[in-house]
Amino acid sequence: MPTLSIRNVKLNVEAIVLVADLVGTVVFAVEGALSAMRGGLDLLGVMVISFVAALGGGVIRDLLIGDTPPNAIRDWRYPALTFATGVVAFIFHSAAQQFPIGLVTVLDAAGLALFAVAGVEKALLFRIRPFVAMLMGTVTGVGGGAIRDVLLARVPVVLHSDIYATAAFAGAFTVVAARRAGLPPGLAALAGGMACFVLRVLAVSYGWHLPKASLG
Amino acid sequence: MPTLSIRNVKLNVEAIVLVADLVGTVVFAVEGALSAMRGGLDLLGVMVISFVAALGGGVIRDLLIGDTPPNAIRDWRYPALTFATGVVAFIFHSAAQQFPIGLVTVLDAAGLALFAVAGVEKALLFRIRPFVAMLMGTVTGVGGGAIRDVLLARVPVVLHSDIYATAAFAGAFTVVAARRAGLPPGLAALAGGMACFVLRVLAVSYGWHLPKASLG
Amino acid sequence: MPTLSIRNVKLNVEAIVLVADLVGTVVFAVEGALSAMRGGLDLLGVMVISFVAALGGGVIRDLLIGDTPPNAIRDWRYPALTFATGVVAFIFHSAAQQFPIGLVTVLDAAGLALFAVAGVEKALLFRIRPFVAMLMGTVTGVGGGAIRDVLLARVPVVLHSDIYATAAFAGAFTVVAARRAGLPPGLAALAGGMACFVLRVLAVSYGWHLPKASLG
Repeated sequence: MPTLSIRNVKLNVEAIVLVADLVGTVVFAVEGALSAMRGGLDLLGVMVISFVAALGGGVIRDLLIGDTPPNAIRDWRYPALTFATGVVAFIFHSAAQQFPIGLVTVLDAAGLALFAVAGVEKALLFRIRPFVAMLMGTVTGVGGGAIRDVLLARVPVVLHSDIYATAAFAGAFTVVAARRAGLPPGLAALAGGMACFVLRVLAVSYGWHLPKASLG
Repeated sequence: MPTLSIRNVKLNVEAIVLVADLVGTVVFAVEGALSAMRGGLDLLGVMVISFVAALGGGVIRDLLIGDTPPNAIRDWRYPALTFATGVVAFIFHSAAQQFPIGLVTVLDAAGLALFAVAGVEKALLFRIRPFVAMLMGTVTGVGGGAIRDVLLARVPVVLHSDIYATAAFAGAFTVVAARRAGLPPGLAALAGGMACFVLRVLAVSYGWHLPKASLG
Repeated sequence: MPTLSIRNVKLNVEAIVLVADLVGTVVFAVEGALSAMRGGLDLLGVMVISFVAALGGGVIRDLLIGDTPPNAIRDWRYPALTFATGVVAFIFHSAAQQFPIGLVTVLDAAGLALFAVAGVEKALLFRIRPFVAMLMGTVTGVGGGAIRDVLLARVPVVLHSDIYATAAFAGAFTVVAARRAGLPPGLAALAGGMACFVLRVLAVSYGWHLPKASLG
């Protein structure tokens, strides 16, 4: 029964993407909630930061490519999920703080990879030029964290430490390059996601940083 | 002459909404101007903050629901009103600082209620789903103050103190719930506005706050 | 051969505008890069700030007037130019810091003038009302620097010191006024650009500032 088995595979890919998307959203929301609580915000502030940390990157992308209302707002389940995550993280904040850092890093890298790949694909679908589409993928991955930091009145972490946006860009770049090389879209997406994920995890493991200039 | 009297009533409702809208805009602009002067901004900075504090929430809403150019920019009288308010507040800043705090709170709550109700109604009109429309109402009410605080390089007040966005959300929620319960739009709007206004005034009177989590 | 000579003139005007546009973009990007390095950002942060400082104003304008995707993203050469500028400024930061301040001021004023004029013209083209079009011109000129400062977690310089946004607004105002007075668009643009440039250079030369209110 080949049809059925192909269908099953397709369903499984969709299921994997959906699970990865939900995991990424929840992980980003929890990280946002913890930042917000550390910044002394109240319950509402925690919920707002959970929302923007998880979905802000996609909102910026959609505003820029002209797809309004943005996805995160068209589908009410995404904001609802992030608010609920914020509330849960607020209530169980002691537990949320004690997640093993390694696990958080891996889940965060998975979320980043998925967001970057989904972002570049959506931009390409909207006929954005490849180079700019890579930027849109990067923004999808890191934009939420940047808004989170701006709302907490601090310089976005992504601008001054770690290989993070670089990993997102590498993933988005890989998607475009793999498609150009003739790979089918599904494989190109997989390659891009792996590139982002592996680079990010390696960077954290080995403490890689981008250079800084020392100005007087 | 029933027609005439109905018409009169309608005209009066429109007049009330217009007055409330202008009052809300001016109050938010004056509060923005005072924040800007306390932050050491110059005359232009005061005018800009007056503008964003009063109209920024509506601009965010319109960008998100895809109604561009935003209202605040399509009708030149709104930016002109906020700039003029900024200039007047700049010149008479001693007087502006001495408004009775109770009066400012009541006028601000009235402005918040109107912005929240107008925001949710516009979102519903643009076929945004009810839950997200409530969020758009909330953003209309509190978004301007949030941009004001970001431009003044501080954490938005709305994220860490007071029942403020919560009151806006309660008002927007009431509008949707009242419509679902079969109330005509006018009454639903009134109910929503009252809910927001009363909750806000009570919260200030009794010093209600949302809970915070204490993270080490 | 009158046709040819007219064509030559037209080509020259276009060439001048293109050169001015590129100069403005590069100057804003270099200034952004230096701010970013002073703020301790890494190479990626420097590239991002170069991009937003140079192109952020135009992006805000395009989002507000509803022209998405914004210019800065539709034409990949602009982001590429600003990223490349960021990298070059990063590598040669000692040299970049030693540009004569007078030259930087003049080039920056030229960029501001061009951005303000281009911004008001684009807004008018999109049928934005004259007063709001002037605001769009101003935002085109100063918006990038404002986002740069917000990302560096500080109050935008443009809000508290110097005649800068005022010069941009004066330029945009002049464009509209000159058109109303019957000048052909090209001359109106020239007059607006000169008004902005001269006011800005005079303000720096003579240390002109807008007034501030001292609040207790």
